[in-house]
Amino acid sequence: MTDLADRPAGSPTTVRAKKPASPRPVATPGATAAAAPAVDVAALEELLLGKWSDTRRAARELAGRPELHKTEGMPHTEHRERVFGQLKILVENGAVHRAFPVELGGADEHGGNVAGFQELVIADPSLQIKAGVQWGLFGSAVNHLGTGEHHKKWLPGIMSLDIPGCFAMTETGHGSDVASIATTATYDAATEEFVVHTPFRAAWKDYIGNAAIDGLAAVVFAQLITSGVNHGVHAFYVELRDPTTKEFLPGIDGEDDGVKGGLNGIDNGRLHFTQVRIPRANLLNRYGNVDADGTYSSPIASPGRRFFTMLGTLVQGRVSLDGAAVTASKLALKTAIQYASERRQFNASSPTEEEVLLDYQRHQRRLFTRLATTYAASFASEQLLEKFDDVFSGRADTDEDRQDLETLAAALKPLSTWHALDTLQECREACGGAGFLIENRFASLRADLDVYATFEGDNTVLLQLVAKRLLADYAKEFRTVNFGVLARYVVGQATGAAIHRTGLRGVAQFMADSGSVQKAAIAIKDEASQRALLTDRVQTMVAEVGTALKGANKLPQQQGAALFNSHQDELIEAAQAHAELLQWEAFTEALGKVTDPGTRKVLTWLRDLFGLSLIEENLSWYLMNGRLSMQRARTVGDYINRLLVKIRPHALDLVDAFGFGPEHLRAEIATGAERLRQDEAREYFRTQRASGDAPVDEKILLARKSHRTRAPRA
Amino acid sequence: MTDLADRPAGSPTTVRAKKPASPRPVATPGATAAAAPAVDVAALEELLLGKWSDTRRAARELAGRPELHKTEGMPHTEHRERVFGQLKILVENGAVHRAFPVELGGADEHGGNVAGFQELVIADPSLQIKAGVQWGLFGSAVNHLGTGEHHKKWLPGIMSLDIPGCFAMTETGHGSDVASIATTATYDAATEEFVVHTPFRAAWKDYIGNAAIDGLAAVVFAQLITSGVNHGVHAFYVELRDPTTKEFLPGIDGEDDGVKGGLNGIDNGRLHFTQVRIPRANLLNRYGNVDADGTYSSPIASPGRRFFTMLGTLVQGRVSLDGAAVTASKLALKTAIQYASERRQFNASSPTEEEVLLDYQRHQRRLFTRLATTYAASFASEQLLEKFDDVFSGRADTDEDRQDLETLAAALKPLSTWHALDTLQECREACGGAGFLIENRFASLRADLDVYATFEGDNTVLLQLVAKRLLADYAKEFRTVNFGVLARYVVGQATGAAIHRTGLRGVAQFMADSGSVQKAAIAIKDEASQRALLTDRVQTMVAEVGTALKGANKLPQQQGAALFNSHQDELIEAAQAHAELLQWEAFTEALGKVTDPGTRKVLTWLRDLFGLSLIEENLSWYLMNGRLSMQRARTVGDYINRLLVKIRPHALDLVDAFGFGPEHLRAEIATGAERLRQDEAREYFRTQRASGDAPVDEKILLARKSHRTRAPRA
Repeated sequence: MTDLADRPAGSPTTVRAKKPASPRPVATPGATAAAAPAVDVAALEELLLGKWSDTRRAARELAGRPELHKTEGMPHTEHRERVFGQLKILVENGAVHRAFPVELGGADEHGGNVAGFQELVIADPSLQIKAGVQWGLFGSAVNHLGTGEHHKKWLPGIMSLDIPGCFAMTETGHGSDVASIATTATYDAATEEFVVHTPFRAAWKDYIGNAAIDGLAAVVFAQLITSGVNHGVHAFYVELRDPTTKEFLPGIDGEDDGVKGGLNGIDNGRLHFTQVRIPRANLLNRYGNVDADGTYSSPIASPGRRFFTMLGTLVQGRVSLDGAAVTASKLALKTAIQYASERRQFNASSPTEEEVLLDYQRHQRRLFTRLATTYAASFASEQLLEKFDDVFSGRADTDEDRQDLETLAAALKPLSTWHALDTLQECREACGGAGFLIENRFASLRADLDVYATFEGDNTVLLQLVAKRLLADYAKEFRTVNFGVLARYVVGQATGAAIHRTGLRGVAQFMADSGSVQKAAIAIKDEASQRALLTDRVQTMVAEVGTALKGANKLPQQQGAALFNSHQDELIEAAQAHAELLQWEAFTEALGKVTDPGTRKVLTWLRDLFGLSLIEENLSWYLMNGRLSMQRARTVGDYINRLLVKIRPHALDLVDAFGFGPEHLRAEIATGAERLRQDEAREYFRTQRASGDAPVDEKILLARKSHRTRAPRA
Repeated sequence: MTDLADRPAGSPTTVRAKKPASPRPVATPGATAAAAPAVDVAALEELLLGKWSDTRRAARELAGRPELHKTEGMPHTEHRERVFGQLKILVENGAVHRAFPVELGGADEHGGNVAGFQELVIADPSLQIKAGVQWGLFGSAVNHLGTGEHHKKWLPGIMSLDIPGCFAMTETGHGSDVASIATTATYDAATEEFVVHTPFRAAWKDYIGNAAIDGLAAVVFAQLITSGVNHGVHAFYVELRDPTTKEFLPGIDGEDDGVKGGLNGIDNGRLHFTQVRIPRANLLNRYGNVDADGTYSSPIASPGRRFFTMLGTLVQGRVSLDGAAVTASKLALKTAIQYASERRQFNASSPTEEEVLLDYQRHQRRLFTRLATTYAASFASEQLLEKFDDVFSGRADTDEDRQDLETLAAALKPLSTWHALDTLQECREACGGAGFLIENRFASLRADLDVYATFEGDNTVLLQLVAKRLLADYAKEFRTVNFGVLARYVVGQATGAAIHRTGLRGVAQFMADSGSVQKAAIAIKDEASQRALLTDRVQTMVAEVGTALKGANKLPQQQGAALFNSHQDELIEAAQAHAELLQWEAFTEALGKVTDPGTRKVLTWLRDLFGLSLIEENLSWYLMNGRLSMQRARTVGDYINRLLVKIRPHALDLVDAFGFGPEHLRAEIATGAERLRQDEAREYFRTQRASGDAPVDEKILLARKSHRTRAPRA
């Protein structure tokens, strides 16, 4: 591992604040400096960067270059052009080929590829997502769903950006429900062609990146029909535009999705097909093939499992978004905490000296709880990426591994993307009017990341997928249940695996191993108690819903669906509780890797803050279910407040460990300018007071007068 | 009052969905049509439009005109020009002069003026806020803080927009803490001039609307110094730019704040002054005057009370934002609920028919709870506006009235502006990818309204002002307490009034009148119980913090401040609980005005949903404090879920009652286009099934095969 301090000084792109290479002691007010723990910032930075730290550093070096930065206030048409140009810079720097086959110039490296991709959000989220469309979705689909000939024919052009392309899956009528897409690809044995067709308006492909302007080709997802049988969703390579004129080819048309809430560097658009004929060979046939005579064959007999396998590549998008969302949260917190440590407002404790914002309890609550969650999400994200790498490298890619990966991504992506939006907003508000200026980036990042909550799998739908898995783990009968949104989405999974185990975490088992929850309720502060409380909640919630839903699959479909629907909210709550537990466990596991005692102490406070905040948020559940007494519950808030005070002296270290330089932050209020302004103002008043020229305050004059008036009477 | 149905048909700007003039019965699934209540949409619309319904309708007619609409995706430079042009349209239509003196062509009408202003958000929030800067802040300051000569000299030009101007109060170094601004206006008796000066960078005026481009003049807030005495913040009329060249006048300079997170139709900027000399007469001298010889005089002896009085006009901005935020929430909910009633996704209860989104429990939870809060906020906003009108019309403008108004605005503005952001975001996510397209407006409105949470008084600071008042009502000792953020902001209030009573709501008294809380815990569903539970929480929280802070003002300043700070979070929570109670009471009071039994029944469900949602959010408090038993608490969630089902058939009526036409909504997904697409798709599949040409699903084929294979064995 390369320590930050070991990097060559004067590296042109890393003009960053100096950091001490070794722990610096912090003077805590009211505590002796010797007794206070200190954070080893460099080591913590290394821990956060994780397994692919070198790749991340290289990606950050790129993301720090001005030519890759978002230019704020640019009209969307120009922004699109800029981002397209930036993609070429990524190609030139070999930043986006890691996941492709070695024989084509790639590295067959999946985890590192996504790690690097996640960091691109620092430059411009549009750049990250446009790169994701080109290489993570379009290129990846050709790579994973196509076979040798396809790779040779198209991957070089895709990798070099000679063929900008689309991943044409989503339709106007169907977002998250991919199985229901209505575009058809009907085989015509007479000409050995597929006829790609859009039967009605709702079947137009929609929100498709690269579709409005740049896409010359697309991987189109359509129902494969041959010899009168619909074999379900398959992927087809379809040329869209003439490479010279950039005009749509015959039978193809579309629309520009126009301006969006963010990510306006990407040309999202709509596509539709009128009896478009493509060669039989354009079926990406790794998991399903059609012979010249129209005979269908597949290495995967079950249509459900085949569908699940083909959609498996989508998980890469979720893993990427998860990590990118964590990175954005880190950017926001570094800026907001830096500013709050310099900004003074209202003189609370002294008549001449105003309070630093970060010393206000509410400000600490707002920022430190989110800092704790960001650490948890960061460690969880790293675990997800390692799992992803295990599966995609082939080291551990059984059906069960893939399903665990799917479920883990479905659990973490909703939490981290929602958390990023919440954090960006809270940080923006914590910086007041300055937070609203684009020059400080909160509003810009928030607008761009908004859609992370609903694309690559709607967060609410993903949590239902997790709930489905939890139910299946709870009782066998739910493994094949087929009601409502849960079932439809994951039917492939449920029937694909022989046995579900509690693959993610032995929730049901834990409580048996660790003894009663009562113990936890006595001392909520320690690790074991937090674990017991968090785990018990997931287990109990799942068991309760499971009991309520017992027999649902024996009811007529409509009644069964109604029963599931009447518990939908609880199911989603349970899934979220499960995901939070996973984050807490990841944080705790990471703690185990910290050797420096000072760092470990401070990180333990932060982990406790995370755990206790979760318990506080769900305190009513613990009380209603008799897990915490009234008296015990009342201590949670106080304990959190005490943790805030303990963390305060280390807040800057904890955000410095994110390892960003000014070229990454690019926020005026994170530059120290506020401190300079405050110092200048205080110096002005100090000089004025010293000179004796300061005007007298009318209030003081009045007080003196009233004193004089009263004096004679005395 | 004019009923909507009475308006001339074919009015060019009101192409709106037809609404029945009388209640329409709703067929509830599983209930007979006769038994179901029906909402009288037209009457409910009238109730929501409130006292100034005619003014609101006139403002909406204007806001519906295309020339006033926001053009999405416009660069900020063009957007600014467009909005400036739109201000002239407002002038031509007499839309912005209501609050000015009758003798100058105004109407001395304050409530109606703000009501009309609130509706402008429908056209473009930039237009609303730019109009607010010109007439609500700049013009209003000249009107309220200036005297006869000032009015004659400047108001005509301000009203006609010949003098676009700024309200230059906020400084880079001081946002919400106005008393601490550092710009000085020092009187020079030799020349009978004030010298306006910016002593250091932090004292630059910042985030000032009209400052970057359009402002020819400004009301500048500065410390008034004469004869060596600082008399505190006063307002001065300062010319900024040459009307012909638009260049800054000598000694004045500034910067453009550039692109912002939203509201980019406004040219916010920075201003600073280098020994700028202005005539003595440019002091807006209603509350403080300087004679030629430099003698200061004021009709208000107490500097604190004088400060509070001069800042009193700021409340108008808060009242305006409160109502505008409610209007934006209504726009979002109408669009999202309309779409959710048409959009189908996942076939849960039938193999061929997909479920309408609004039938999913989670979707109902997401949208109906926010609908209930929007109704509560709307009724509370109307009460605030009436109070504002009472005070500003002079009908009821004692110090106490003004303080009640201040506190009420400080309580409601944070809740409604945060609620608008939350609602816009939830609606955007509930509409998936379509919600992210600017054509559906959620993202655009959210970006523009973002800053409503921190300008015209930071929400967190405003809630602390409310907490201060609650403490003062609780115990006399807190009336003059002077620690931290609370005290500094409202010091004028605290010392200005002789006696504070529980002016807003007799919280302390209520519990005594109504008997024990135990009763409430038994039947949480009825009105009296909800009131008891919500009121008890406010009362108890305030009493607890009050007890904890007892004697704080006898401690040395630093310790006293530390004690306050250690309870800051609780104080803010108590203030929020108080504000929520006010909303609940406003909703309940409005219910009393509903005569139609069907409407009253449905609105009562909605009010109950609001009340129980508040109780659910704070359930842990009720449990920890023994107000609800475990058993009782567990029924809250179920009861909420049952309310969702009851409200479902009336959801469209409840959003139709907001009274928006397509010219206000301007969202593609609110036009019924989704229903047409869904119908087309279903018709396609129905025809295909009927024709017998439909391809067979491979899964069905496999099922048949397996049936045939098994058959011989049987």
